[in-house]
Amino acid sequence: MQSPFPIPTFALECKTFAKDSFGASFTHPFVLALAKGTLDPKVFRFYQIQDAKYLESFSDACAILSTKVSDPDDKLWLIDAARMALVVEGQLHIGYGKTLGYDANTIANTEPTPNNWAYQNHMVATVMKGSVLEGFCAIAPCPWLYIELGQHLLQEMGSIPQDHPYASWLNMYSDPGFNEYMTHLLARVQKYADLADETSKARAKMVFQQSCNYEWMFWEQAWTNQNWPSR
Amino acid sequence: MQSPFPIPTFALECKTFAKDSFGASFTHPFVLALAKGTLDPKVFRFYQIQDAKYLESFSDACAILSTKVSDPDDKLWLIDAARMALVVEGQLHIGYGKTLGYDANTIANTEPTPNNWAYQNHMVATVMKGSVLEGFCAIAPCPWLYIELGQHLLQEMGSIPQDHPYASWLNMYSDPGFNEYMTHLLARVQKYADLADETSKARAKMVFQQSCNYEWMFWEQAWTNQNWPSR
Amino acid sequence: MQSPFPIPTFALECKTFAKDSFGASFTHPFVLALAKGTLDPKVFRFYQIQDAKYLESFSDACAILSTKVSDPDDKLWLIDAARMALVVEGQLHIGYGKTLGYDANTIANTEPTPNNWAYQNHMVATVMKGSVLEGFCAIAPCPWLYIELGQHLLQEMGSIPQDHPYASWLNMYSDPGFNEYMTHLLARVQKYADLADETSKARAKMVFQQSCNYEWMFWEQAWTNQNWPSR
Amino acid sequence: MQSPFPIPTFALECKTFAKDSFGASFTHPFVLALAKGTLDPKVFRFYQIQDAKYLESFSDACAILSTKVSDPDDKLWLIDAARMALVVEGQLHIGYGKTLGYDANTIANTEPTPNNWAYQNHMVATVMKGSVLEGFCAIAPCPWLYIELGQHLLQEMGSIPQDHPYASWLNMYSDPGFNEYMTHLLARVQKYADLADETSKARAKMVFQQSCNYEWMFWEQAWTNQNWPSR
Repeated sequence: MQSPFPIPTFALECKTFAKDSFGASFTHPFVLALAKGTLDPKVFRFYQIQDAKYLESFSDACAILSTKVSDPDDKLWLIDAARMALVVEGQLHIGYGKTLGYDANTIANTEPTPNNWAYQNHMVATVMKGSVLEGFCAIAPCPWLYIELGQHLLQEMGSIPQDHPYASWLNMYSDPGFNEYMTHLLARVQKYADLADETSKARAKMVFQQSCNYEWMFWEQAWTNQNWPSR
Repeated sequence: MQSPFPIPTFALECKTFAKDSFGASFTHPFVLALAKGTLDPKVFRFYQIQDAKYLESFSDACAILSTKVSDPDDKLWLIDAARMALVVEGQLHIGYGKTLGYDANTIANTEPTPNNWAYQNHMVATVMKGSVLEGFCAIAPCPWLYIELGQHLLQEMGSIPQDHPYASWLNMYSDPGFNEYMTHLLARVQKYADLADETSKARAKMVFQQSCNYEWMFWEQAWTNQNWPSR
Repeated sequence: MQSPFPIPTFALECKTFAKDSFGASFTHPFVLALAKGTLDPKVFRFYQIQDAKYLESFSDACAILSTKVSDPDDKLWLIDAARMALVVEGQLHIGYGKTLGYDANTIANTEPTPNNWAYQNHMVATVMKGSVLEGFCAIAPCPWLYIELGQHLLQEMGSIPQDHPYASWLNMYSDPGFNEYMTHLLARVQKYADLADETSKARAKMVFQQSCNYEWMFWEQAWTNQNWPSR
Repeated sequence: MQSPFPIPTFALECKTFAKDSFGASFTHPFVLALAKGTLDPKVFRFYQIQDAKYLESFSDACAILSTKVSDPDDKLWLIDAARMALVVEGQLHIGYGKTLGYDANTIANTEPTPNNWAYQNHMVATVMKGSVLEGFCAIAPCPWLYIELGQHLLQEMGSIPQDHPYASWLNMYSDPGFNEYMTHLLARVQKYADLADETSKARAKMVFQQSCNYEWMFWEQAWTNQNWPSR
């Protein structure tokens, strides 16, 4: 599939480096069942609750990263990204919460699964300790994968039937409105890559790949109803 | 003047503790000249450029604090506060920038004055190292003072003449739309004070007072065209 | 086994809450094989290299936490804990590195396993975002478990034969010198618990339990030669 | 005076850029009176108490910076620098505390002066938000200036009379043992400068200069018995 938004050099290097990890999500059983509409609503509910918790940390990561950039445009972009994680996607949760039976309290009182907690802390610790480039590379795979996946599923399906049980989800992530978001995000990845030495870039690619792995592990935790070991 | 927004117990304790420091801004020569319209536009320009830089750190402080609260409403409120610092007030700067001759580049290339830099880092270091309560007490005086001052000046003046050279500034901060912002902010100060022990509350009051002092020092740096010593 | 160091109330509550998670490490096949001396040196080498990386983040967590305490004794204790993680245990690695064939470069060039990376970031993100109490509860299980485990194994074995392949490891962690360390650590857990409200304490217990789970997952990653999924 | 430790290129650039700011401390009335032995013990006591508070933040800055370097040697060096700030210099305070009448409680209960608080937060916010290079440049002027000043004063005085009222202070900072510390510190400044782009280096030089200004402002706050304005 051709990308509906430009992919600058370093972002492409990252994606090529993490090709298998990025691609694995496309064939995860959770994703296939979601697209087909056969996914057990209980599993989707589990996924949505964990996702809501995840988005709070995505916001945290963007917020911390916003303090480390001095260009006011980059700062505002990151604050907006934090905001979108909390608001726009929160709206999705309000919708599904009513249908599937969960609300803000359910979310607050649910412990993150190990895979989810690991992904959240990977982002937060990376923006805290790492360079600005590593920070952007930690957060980029989440929107990139969802948007590419959403548009890929739409292409596969031709159109999303109104009565598809996961129509809202599929519509959200296949929305071409996200292309502009991605254009801005990847332009910033490139901007900070242009300033970075080779070691930093190698580290950023590893961070990017780890986030791609965490994306796969996120489907996995929902699919397997993951719990903490040794309890 | 009666407060146009509710002031919960601990917020009132803070303000009472810092009464002189809070009040000092109302009679600072910069403020008096601003209200009268006699303030040298060069001095106002200096102030506005420093203020733009200050707001970036105000955003940083809100952003870091947002990562330390677990209630999603508090998180979103802080992200919105960060956003408002960057956007809404940024608009003020665009307006005055045209009139007074400065733009984003001017702001980026101007070094903060000692008083400004001290205030900025006071907020950032406090949210980083301190409790959530201390964090809220570090950021509260800035909007509280500006809003109370704006409404006080409006009351004094009766109305703001359209041809007042600082009409935009005076209109912005006397806008009753900020009352809701203050209501939410002080409710959060109270919420975290309710969970805090006495030592933490004493520290938070000191932080609040220091921010009040920095407000006065901010007028002062603009009024005196402050530079770094020993250069 | 009676504890060789005092366990204050809240620390005991944490340990009781996380009983199964804490206890699970004692019967992990890695631990049993290590004690018997039958553990494959390749597996031990894998474990040691990952452990060296882990200790860098343990140091990071102590370092960040040190900035959030205002009592200079607590600050110094945490800096010393950071230092010990880097130095004293680093010495163990120098010894085993010679025997098992790895050095500082090997460590630097090895990617952390998912379980290790998750544990590291759990500590770092918790001290960054959470309360001081949560921070102490994130780092406490590591030394506590190792010391209790070391002394338990010594008791089981009666004495550690000089020719035991993992004698240095067993001697280090059964060293009663660590009792003082634990006394100080748990006293600080109690000190900050005394200042905390119930919600904070509940969160801290969850953090403690998660760290206990990560301890078990750490043996597991070495035992299973864990790699990142979907690569 | 020839430097008793090597000054790599970028460190020299920093010092040259900040020449006036760095040099201003050498002739500050506080320093002159300290060297002559005519400094009012009350003023020295004020300085020492503020200095003790300052060192806690110096430790904090080193601690946070230690989490952002991945080389274990750099990490340990920074943890050791944090430790030295708390321990070695703490010993100086114990000595003078007995003579001049202050102890740990006095220090804990004294509010930092504006200049001190500004310097502390400058270091903490810079290591939090800035690059590793900026972090090193924020902390470097403090030891560099004290060591160069100590050795300069020793040279001027020929030797430090045993009955000089500030002999311990003068002996500490003229101790050639610090030369190794400086060698290591400046080597790290250079190492991270070698990886940095021009914009980052320009920012780091500004940070270095600001820390030099804060050094002068530190003598000044003690000399003038500085208090917070508008209280």
